[in-house]
Amino acid sequence: MQKGDILLRDLDADGILRLTLNDAGRRNALSEAMLAELGAAFAEAGTDPAVRVIILAANGPAFCAGHDLKEMTAGRAGPDGGRAYFSKVMSMCSGVMQGIVNCPRPVIAEVTGIATAAGCQLVASCDLAIAADTAQFSTPGVHIGLFCSTPMVALSRNVNNKHAMEMLLTGDMTPAGRAAEIGLVNRCVAPEALQAATLEMARKIASKSSMTLATGKRAFYAQREMTLSEAYDYASGVMVDNMLARDAEEGIGAFIEKRAPQWQDA
Amino acid sequence: MQKGDILLRDLDADGILRLTLNDAGRRNALSEAMLAELGAAFAEAGTDPAVRVIILAANGPAFCAGHDLKEMTAGRAGPDGGRAYFSKVMSMCSGVMQGIVNCPRPVIAEVTGIATAAGCQLVASCDLAIAADTAQFSTPGVHIGLFCSTPMVALSRNVNNKHAMEMLLTGDMTPAGRAAEIGLVNRCVAPEALQAATLEMARKIASKSSMTLATGKRAFYAQREMTLSEAYDYASGVMVDNMLARDAEEGIGAFIEKRAPQWQDA
Amino acid sequence: MQKGDILLRDLDADGILRLTLNDAGRRNALSEAMLAELGAAFAEAGTDPAVRVIILAANGPAFCAGHDLKEMTAGRAGPDGGRAYFSKVMSMCSGVMQGIVNCPRPVIAEVTGIATAAGCQLVASCDLAIAADTAQFSTPGVHIGLFCSTPMVALSRNVNNKHAMEMLLTGDMTPAGRAAEIGLVNRCVAPEALQAATLEMARKIASKSSMTLATGKRAFYAQREMTLSEAYDYASGVMVDNMLARDAEEGIGAFIEKRAPQWQDA
Repeated sequence: MQKGDILLRDLDADGILRLTLNDAGRRNALSEAMLAELGAAFAEAGTDPAVRVIILAANGPAFCAGHDLKEMTAGRAGPDGGRAYFSKVMSMCSGVMQGIVNCPRPVIAEVTGIATAAGCQLVASCDLAIAADTAQFSTPGVHIGLFCSTPMVALSRNVNNKHAMEMLLTGDMTPAGRAAEIGLVNRCVAPEALQAATLEMARKIASKSSMTLATGKRAFYAQREMTLSEAYDYASGVMVDNMLARDAEEGIGAFIEKRAPQWQDA
Repeated sequence: MQKGDILLRDLDADGILRLTLNDAGRRNALSEAMLAELGAAFAEAGTDPAVRVIILAANGPAFCAGHDLKEMTAGRAGPDGGRAYFSKVMSMCSGVMQGIVNCPRPVIAEVTGIATAAGCQLVASCDLAIAADTAQFSTPGVHIGLFCSTPMVALSRNVNNKHAMEMLLTGDMTPAGRAAEIGLVNRCVAPEALQAATLEMARKIASKSSMTLATGKRAFYAQREMTLSEAYDYASGVMVDNMLARDAEEGIGAFIEKRAPQWQDA
Repeated sequence: MQKGDILLRDLDADGILRLTLNDAGRRNALSEAMLAELGAAFAEAGTDPAVRVIILAANGPAFCAGHDLKEMTAGRAGPDGGRAYFSKVMSMCSGVMQGIVNCPRPVIAEVTGIATAAGCQLVASCDLAIAADTAQFSTPGVHIGLFCSTPMVALSRNVNNKHAMEMLLTGDMTPAGRAAEIGLVNRCVAPEALQAATLEMARKIASKSSMTLATGKRAFYAQREMTLSEAYDYASGVMVDNMLARDAEEGIGAFIEKRAPQWQDA
């Protein structure tokens, strides 16, 4: 399989990079190959000035079914029973998830079908998510004796404790409507309206200053882990630096003069 | 009163331990005796391999009315005005609440009636909760000059800040439907359907590997207190160890072979 | 302009201090003058025993439009391009927001119209908020190249991550009904019912012991930043001290004797 086959990359004229999981035969499982593709794609998008916003989509009926269990099982063949292999895969997977959080571009999940285990984690790790109202979410590891412990890191940073625990302990499917209620996705729409909905959201965000988006996204996740007082000290400094940046001067000037701003990086 | 009278313990063939608060005359208040019973019951359940899931239920119209105020008032008679006694009771109570969180078995609250003050905290401390739609919740300490400061530790880890503050500052009753909306309980059902609903949830969870449930529950609460990066390092290690455990090998094998898994501890 | 003109202060016989943003011509912008007034008002209210609860309201169609952009732009004239000025304003603003959190009196936002940028932060910083169902909320800094990094400190401590991110990355208006769903406000009511609704909530809270409210509010925000175990140790100590305070003894006694309590500070 050639590089890029299992992950399609399309960049449009508005700076919207559409990454499409394209391994429908394996329900877009996060195989080693897929993790490598995703990790590289987010890393490259973060340094490519042409990319302003990322949509993470999928081909086929499933959005993403999580790890590739056959690959994982094959990994047991090592002399250590698989410990080194599992450690490598977990490290890759956690790296991809944190790569989404650390990517300076906003990332929107476009969830067409089921998103389970690390596939659910993928949605939770994106900044924003819109789902088809036929989509479903679960952390079903408990069914196979393997608790979804890494997915829960992302899940529990999106939804309240009892909602996370219900998904984790029962392994039940959460329909898209319920996922919207508990905050796992921003909203759900009819399947035929999904692509237009994410594109509209992406276009809106792509029209902003990339410097500003990158500043804000980084600051968001950084300040969430601070005390209130630390967070204010930190965010005040971010605001001062942002005020002094060219795009804020331009943006505020344009607002006062009632004209459209011209971003430096646009 | 003999040991066990105020807290009934029934273990069924599926490994579901039903703990029933049975002091309806005192609205199931968390008296010293009740706290001692609860603390012992969760500690024992955590080491008894026959127990797979715990339901915390109550007899009588009230689920639990919190501390026993007459007992607390009697405690003032000490030479220190009650300081040593109050410290002891608070320590016992906080110990019981953390004992639920630290218990390796999933705990489901079955909330029939009012759950107030430390009774509301009890529900918030459980991993899951289903309420009768006639149940009500409150943290009414503010009415009597005693802010529900320990209940709020659990409450504020279940619901968002403004929702917690409204309950704490007004002392108002929150109906079950609203409690479900804000995340204090997972859902509410008709009173006559309540016991069947918690039992169904308990059975589903009891069918999983106890090792897996214990691993996941412990990891859930541990990683909630870490930064994202620490949480991923920690949870990745948990996943690797879980993959190497016998029940994950069996569970994944059963899944691939499309058969029911046989857990080691079942 | 005389001190007090842009911020009206009315204290009623129940101990309810109504602070009204009164600079409708500038949409109640958080100018330097307004920040100074607000900072002083919350500081004074916190030490004035006559004040029991604070309502933060506004005159004019807008609740608060955030920083005064013309004032900020004028600040660029300094030899450092405005760095010292911006630092001063951000420090003042973060000080006011933390002053609300640290004020021992409960603070209720009464949101009549739009609350944007630092105006949205003001609502998020209050302990409680009720909005007219015609009110709207946004963190629109992204439109002008200046991410709402300080507003997000308060916002992200009120609503779940994806909800916060949608507001921050799109800059879109959130209607009051949606703001209630995600937890940014406690609820919304018809505009003509708003003042009565906040007053009812304020009266209810003003009828409690001020010592108890101050104890509880301080403890709430303190324990939110602790681990579960630290939080229980801390809150247990708070409860013991609270039990030994005169108002708890009076409140519990009144409850047992079925009479109205007489608070020390009432």
